[in-house]
Amino acid sequence: MKIDGVPTRSLRAHPALGVFDIIDQTRLPHGLHWLRVANRAAAAHAIRAMQVRGAPLIGVTAAYGVAVALAVDASNEALDQALIFLGKTRPTAVNLHWALGRMGERLRPLPPAERPAAAWAEAAAIEEEDVAQNRAIGEHGRALLARHAPRRDGPLQIMTHCNAGWLATVDWGTALAPIYAAFDAGVDLHIWVSETRPRNQGLLTAWELAQHGVAHTVVADNAAGILMREGRVDAVIVGADRIASNGDVANKVGTYLKALACADNRIPFYVAAPRSTVDFACAEGAAIPIEERDGDELRLLQGLDERGAPASVRQLAAREAVGNPAFDVTPARLVTAIITERGACPASREGLAALYPEHAA
Amino acid sequence: MKIDGVPTRSLRAHPALGVFDIIDQTRLPHGLHWLRVANRAAAAHAIRAMQVRGAPLIGVTAAYGVAVALAVDASNEALDQALIFLGKTRPTAVNLHWALGRMGERLRPLPPAERPAAAWAEAAAIEEEDVAQNRAIGEHGRALLARHAPRRDGPLQIMTHCNAGWLATVDWGTALAPIYAAFDAGVDLHIWVSETRPRNQGLLTAWELAQHGVAHTVVADNAAGILMREGRVDAVIVGADRIASNGDVANKVGTYLKALACADNRIPFYVAAPRSTVDFACAEGAAIPIEERDGDELRLLQGLDERGAPASVRQLAAREAVGNPAFDVTPARLVTAIITERGACPASREGLAALYPEHAA
Repeated sequence: MKIDGVPTRSLRAHPALGVFDIIDQTRLPHGLHWLRVANRAAAAHAIRAMQVRGAPLIGVTAAYGVAVALAVDASNEALDQALIFLGKTRPTAVNLHWALGRMGERLRPLPPAERPAAAWAEAAAIEEEDVAQNRAIGEHGRALLARHAPRRDGPLQIMTHCNAGWLATVDWGTALAPIYAAFDAGVDLHIWVSETRPRNQGLLTAWELAQHGVAHTVVADNAAGILMREGRVDAVIVGADRIASNGDVANKVGTYLKALACADNRIPFYVAAPRSTVDFACAEGAAIPIEERDGDELRLLQGLDERGAPASVRQLAAREAVGNPAFDVTPARLVTAIITERGACPASREGLAALYPEHAA
Repeated sequence: MKIDGVPTRSLRAHPALGVFDIIDQTRLPHGLHWLRVANRAAAAHAIRAMQVRGAPLIGVTAAYGVAVALAVDASNEALDQALIFLGKTRPTAVNLHWALGRMGERLRPLPPAERPAAAWAEAAAIEEEDVAQNRAIGEHGRALLARHAPRRDGPLQIMTHCNAGWLATVDWGTALAPIYAAFDAGVDLHIWVSETRPRNQGLLTAWELAQHGVAHTVVADNAAGILMREGRVDAVIVGADRIASNGDVANKVGTYLKALACADNRIPFYVAAPRSTVDFACAEGAAIPIEERDGDELRLLQGLDERGAPASVRQLAAREAVGNPAFDVTPARLVTAIITERGACPASREGLAALYPEHAA
């Protein structure tokens, strides 16, 4: 995609320098800042602190994190440590473990001297596959959205949640890829962008859409239900952090509420994700680990500081106060279809098995 | 209720001075500031700008607004103008129109000279009834909550949305009245306080609960679904801005999403409101006007200013971008019971008619 008209990906590798660059997404949309990642610790920090976020990009970042680590020490022990260290950064997005598993499989059989170059090559292969898969998701999704367009009375109204655009992947995005593809094909679109508290990733989506010229409106997460009841939403499309083999979907917290509102108002609810997000070893959503992040996120994003805030507000930020789950699970029964790089399928064991027979149990 | 241990109501009338004082709720919880309301325009501004909010308190404020207006001019024309002017401030909370209607009925038959004193007396009567009704709602609601307590493994877990406490009424509150009554009766409670974007009224609830010593945690609105699915919520209780005669409930935007999640997880969803919130002339929720507030609310509360914000963020705040509904409608089928000053009833035409036979068609 493009920033100010210049073709850009969300990550840039520099194998000759043994480093890679990421956009510090915690500073968007207020400013565009690139960060250089030069060691394993910086890669892990980037994932944990959400400088990079989005399941596919977390996977690619972890893969390059292995490459950066092996540039210093490519022994068996260093490889194992890098895989374990990076694997502990965030629990829910399965792309992280998928990418690290693939790096391990590729690198373990090699002699240490060959590993650094192979690590950069494998990470680059994962990166290029991500781009190709997202482009394919875009085309399959565009075809699905075309069934809903045109509306008689104005643009097609799509709602999304969180950011599942090119910032969340390497390029194109998952949920936003069909939107970009449809827009580029001339479909008249307007996107309802859910603010996505507590971290406001909706602003990343708004920034992306503005860069591409797609009409959009940011709304409070709370507004999803009434907008649907009033007939102002034609379809919802979101990404995913992990899809269980039965079609249950873990995604950014709040997704489940939107899926419930879609079902209650007979609006299609689509999930867009590549193969690397499907966890065939996970039988159902209840088995997906849900990350509980620090309660400080709520306080900090309200602009309240430790000194200025009254006691009751400090109480909400107390570390012992849990209640900040980063994801939720949408049961398969609420998902109209899963859109993958191989096409759309029903959110079910049979649907996923038919698309990915080589992975089905 | 109390502020720093001192008995306090959300509003203080001074009939001898021809004014009344309100708490500027737009500045809570960061600071406690009382505002003096000395004319009709200030009363209307207080309601429109949400210095006072909460359906019952809007009604009482409007009643005192009439009293303040008549202190200057008590002619028929002035009375009619005051009723019309104050009635235009906000569209959804029916208590506003109920209170103004009652003031008109009481004052119109009187000679102008007697109206000022009668206006203060009638507004005071509405105020005192509000306190008594909310106390009764608290007792009826406490009895309902007692059915769910005690839990074997810790405190009773109640979720609420927005602020329906004593700040939203004159005293006690609607949704929070049962919580205060249960807490005062020794029930072990913990309250999940929904942040309530875009205006963060959850912080008002957190402030109230902290003043009273009730354990609570503020959570993102998005977290409601996963907390319920994980068995961490025993009941949800909210207030209302207008209840149609069939039991459909208009309340702060986001309420409907919580009701859907309750239904999907078999968790009771209670609505607490006095008689003045029931609109017997309104057949169903679809007929309730839903206020669409300025999109600036989303921008301002993110701490973004016009100069500092990038284009895409300015775009979200554009005045032409609708998408900031202040309320939504929860269909009666999702409401377990309505808790009124006369007791709890099913959310249905029959249920409300049985409690209020004098108003039923």
